Amino acid sequence: MASPATTTANASYSTLCTKHNLALSTNHHFHNNTLRFPSQNPVQIRPLSLSSSPPAKLSVKVSAAVMETSKSSSSSVPTIVDVDLGDRSYPIYIGSGLLNQPDLLQRHIHGKRVLVVTNTTVAPLYLDKVVNALTVGNPNVTVENVILPDGEKYKDMDTLMKVFDKAIESRLDRRCTFVALGGGVIGDMCGYAAASFLRGVNFIQIPTTVMAQVDSSVGGKTGINHRLGKNLIGAFYQPQCVLIDTDTLNTLPDRELASGLAEVIKYGLIRDAPFFEWQEKNMQALMSRDPDAFAYAIKRSCENKAEVVSQDEKESGLRATLNLGHTFGHAIETSYGYGHWLHGEAVAAGTVMAVDMSYRLGWIDESIVERVHNILKQAKLPNTPPEMMTVDMFKSVMAVDKKVADGLLRLILLKGPLGSCVFTGDYDRKALDETLHAFCKS
Amino acid sequence: MASPATTTANASYSTLCTKHNLALSTNHHFHNNTLRFPSQNPVQIRPLSLSSSPPAKLSVKVSAAVMETSKSSSSSVPTIVDVDLGDRSYPIYIGSGLLNQPDLLQRHIHGKRVLVVTNTTVAPLYLDKVVNALTVGNPNVTVENVILPDGEKYKDMDTLMKVFDKAIESRLDRRCTFVALGGGVIGDMCGYAAASFLRGVNFIQIPTTVMAQVDSSVGGKTGINHRLGKNLIGAFYQPQCVLIDTDTLNTLPDRELASGLAEVIKYGLIRDAPFFEWQEKNMQALMSRDPDAFAYAIKRSCENKAEVVSQDEKESGLRATLNLGHTFGHAIETSYGYGHWLHGEAVAAGTVMAVDMSYRLGWIDESIVERVHNILKQAKLPNTPPEMMTVDMFKSVMAVDKKVADGLLRLILLKGPLGSCVFTGDYDRKALDETLHAFCKS
Repeated sequence: MASPATTTANASYSTLCTKHNLALSTNHHFHNNTLRFPSQNPVQIRPLSLSSSPPAKLSVKVSAAVMETSKSSSSSVPTIVDVDLGDRSYPIYIGSGLLNQPDLLQRHIHGKRVLVVTNTTVAPLYLDKVVNALTVGNPNVTVENVILPDGEKYKDMDTLMKVFDKAIESRLDRRCTFVALGGGVIGDMCGYAAASFLRGVNFIQIPTTVMAQVDSSVGGKTGINHRLGKNLIGAFYQPQCVLIDTDTLNTLPDRELASGLAEVIKYGLIRDAPFFEWQEKNMQALMSRDPDAFAYAIKRSCENKAEVVSQDEKESGLRATLNLGHTFGHAIETSYGYGHWLHGEAVAAGTVMAVDMSYRLGWIDESIVERVHNILKQAKLPNTPPEMMTVDMFKSVMAVDKKVADGLLRLILLKGPLGSCVFTGDYDRKALDETLHAFCKS
Repeated sequence: MASPATTTANASYSTLCTKHNLALSTNHHFHNNTLRFPSQNPVQIRPLSLSSSPPAKLSVKVSAAVMETSKSSSSSVPTIVDVDLGDRSYPIYIGSGLLNQPDLLQRHIHGKRVLVVTNTTVAPLYLDKVVNALTVGNPNVTVENVILPDGEKYKDMDTLMKVFDKAIESRLDRRCTFVALGGGVIGDMCGYAAASFLRGVNFIQIPTTVMAQVDSSVGGKTGINHRLGKNLIGAFYQPQCVLIDTDTLNTLPDRELASGLAEVIKYGLIRDAPFFEWQEKNMQALMSRDPDAFAYAIKRSCENKAEVVSQDEKESGLRATLNLGHTFGHAIETSYGYGHWLHGEAVAAGTVMAVDMSYRLGWIDESIVERVHNILKQAKLPNTPPEMMTVDMFKSVMAVDKKVADGLLRLILLKGPLGSCVFTGDYDRKALDETLHAFCKS
C-alpha cells in the first residue's frame, strides 16, 4: 500500500495548520502529505481528544509522501489520507483531476478483470473516463460494467442481484476487482456485492457525490435496505483504495451538494469543534462551490472518519457516534419513502432532533442548539422532519435500528462543550418522547 | 472461548493414537481432549505432513480439558476439537446426547434473543429439543424460529430473504444469535444470513447430517447458490461454536448418511492416508451406523478440517484441497438440477473423475484408482456422473468455478503416494479433455 516513491518526515499538526480558517490555502499545505491514524489508540467517546483541543495544539503524526503520478494539465498531486486497519489498511486519494492519473487506480488492480458498478446518471458522465483510466497503457485488463437505476429506492436485493448476474455471466473470478462509481447507494451496493461475490473480491471506491466523498465511501460499511429499514443487510468490507476526484462535484446538483454537507457538519458536532467553527466561517464558500474550501472540507472529513474507523472498525462503540442524527433520519427516510428526501436532508432534520433532545436532557447549552440551526440554514438543509411524520412512525422504525441492544435503543447525543458527544442508552425516556412530540403533529 | 474448568497437559499424539484402527476405542481415548491446531504453521500442500506420516509418529499439541456439563443419562462428555483462528477461534463439541446438555449452547449465547433457522424435515424432529436446550434454566432468553423448505434447490436468495424478514419482523438486534439446525444447506444459508444481518451477528452451528457434521459446519464457509453455479454468493464467517450431537444421525436416511461419507473419504485421499486405511477397514461399520465408528470418523474429519482452516481460513491455497472432486461435482449438481443427486453423491462421482485425471497425468499409481473405486462401492456411492452429463455441460459450469483465476481453472488432483494432493492450474489440458470424454457419452 506504500507509494512508489515516499519520503518520510515527522511534523506536528501545528506546523501545517495554525489557524481555524486555513481552508483556502490547504492545497498548498496538504499536498504530498500522508496522515496516518494509529489503530492502537484507546477508544474515547467523551470527551473526544480531537474535538476538545484547538488545532494549533494538536499533534498528529504526519508523514510526507511524494507521489509519482502521470502528468496532466488538469491534475494535481493527490492528498492522501490513510485508513489504518492493519493488513486491511488503504489510502484515500483526494484531489482535482485524479481520474486523469491512471496509475492511481491501476496500482490497486491485481487481476485482469474489472467490473464497474455505476448508475444511469453517473455512467454518461464518467464511465468512459474511468474505463480509460483503468485500461490506458494496461492492455491486459478488460472492463465490464453494470448500470443500475439511480436512487435509494433501488438499494435492494433485486438490484443487487443484477450485479451478481453480470459478474457471473462475465465469468469474473476471485482475482477480479469491483469498482463503485457513483454516490453512496452505488458504493454501498457495490461494496456488499464485492464482499459476497465468490465470498469476497477486491473493490475500489470512486465516489462522485459530497455525501460519498466525505462519509460513505470510507470505512467499509456496505449493504442494502430492507423494506422495514435502512442498511439492515450488509457487511463490513474494506476497499483497496478510495479515489476522490473533486472535479466530479462540478456535475453534482445543488441539492445533492447540500445533502452531503450534513455529514460534514456532523464531524464538527461530534468530535471536531475547530472544524465546526471553520464551517461556520466558510459555509458560503462551500455553497458557492469554492474548490479550495471543498478540498479542505473533504480532507478534514476523511481524516475524522479514518481516525474513528481505525479505532473501531466494527462499531463496538466510538464508530456509532458517526451516526448523529441518523436514527431519527433513517426513520424519516423509511417512513417518508425513498426519493422524496435525500439522505443528508433526513440526517439534517435528525440532527436537529438529536440536538433538541440533548438540550432537553440538560446536556448542552442553548448556544449549541442555535449554532446548529444557523449552520443548517446556511447549508439550506431542513431543520424539521416532513409534516407527515408521526411519533408512531419514528418509534416503529427506530425499534429496528442497528443500535438497539437487548431491546434498548442507544442514541448519539451531544453532551458538554461543542464537539463532544455520547453514545448511550442511559437517558430519560421522557426527553425522547418530548422531542418526538415537539417535532410531530401527532 | 475457554472451557469453564480446564486443565492442560501436553502429550504427543502417539500416546493417544497408536494404531490405525483405533476407532472402536476412541471414546475412551479422546473424551475430554482439546486438540489445538496453531494457525501460524507454514502452508504446505504437497506433501502434506499429516498424510505422509503414520499416526504413531505424529506429534500434535494436545491439551486435556475437563468440561463441567449438566449430567444426563443419555449424554456423554463431549470431545472438543478447537478451530484455531485467533480471536475468531471456536470449539467443535462432538458426542452423544449433547442436545441434553443446555450449558454447552447457553455459554455461547451472548444476548437475549435467538433465531433458530431450520427446515421442514428437521423442525419436527429437533426444534423443540433445541429450544429447550437454549431456554431451560435461562428465562431471559427468547427464541424465534424460521422453518425453510428442505433441499438444495431452496438455497437461494428468495429463501434467504425469509430469514432476514423473520429477523427484522422479530426486531432482533446486533446482540442476537442465529442457530443453524439442519444439514449443509441450512448451515450455509443461516451462516450467510448471520454474516449479513445488521452487518454481522453471532451464530451457532448444530449440524444434523453426516455431510454437515464432518465438513460444511466447520470452517466458516457460508453462502447461497446462483442459478449459474453453486455457492457463488456468500461470506467467510465463523460460528461461535459447532455442536455435533451424534444422536441426530439416528433419524438420517441411509442415502444422506452415505452422501456424507464422500467427504470423509476425501480427507483420507488428500491428506490423511492412515484415516483412509482406517476407512477401508471400517466402512462396513460406518454403513451399519456403528456409533463408535461414527464418533471417530466425525472427530478425525473435524480435526483435518480444523487443521486446514486454521492454516488457510480464506482459501488462498491449502484450503482449496478440501474441494477434491467438487469442481466436477458442482458441475453435476448445477447441470443435473438440485434434488436429483445429493451433494456427496456428486462429489463421489467428481472424485472418481479427479482421480482418473490424476492417473492419466501419471501422477498416481493404478492402485489408488482401484482403492477409490472400492471404497466408494462399499459406501454405495456413484463412481460415474449421471448419463445425461455432456462434456460441454462440465466445461460450461467449471468455467465459473471459484477456483478459476485469471481465466485458468485450477483443480485439486492427487499426486504421489496415498494422501498427497496438489491444487494447481499447471496440468496438461489434454488429460482434462480425456477424462471428460471418458465419463460422458457426448
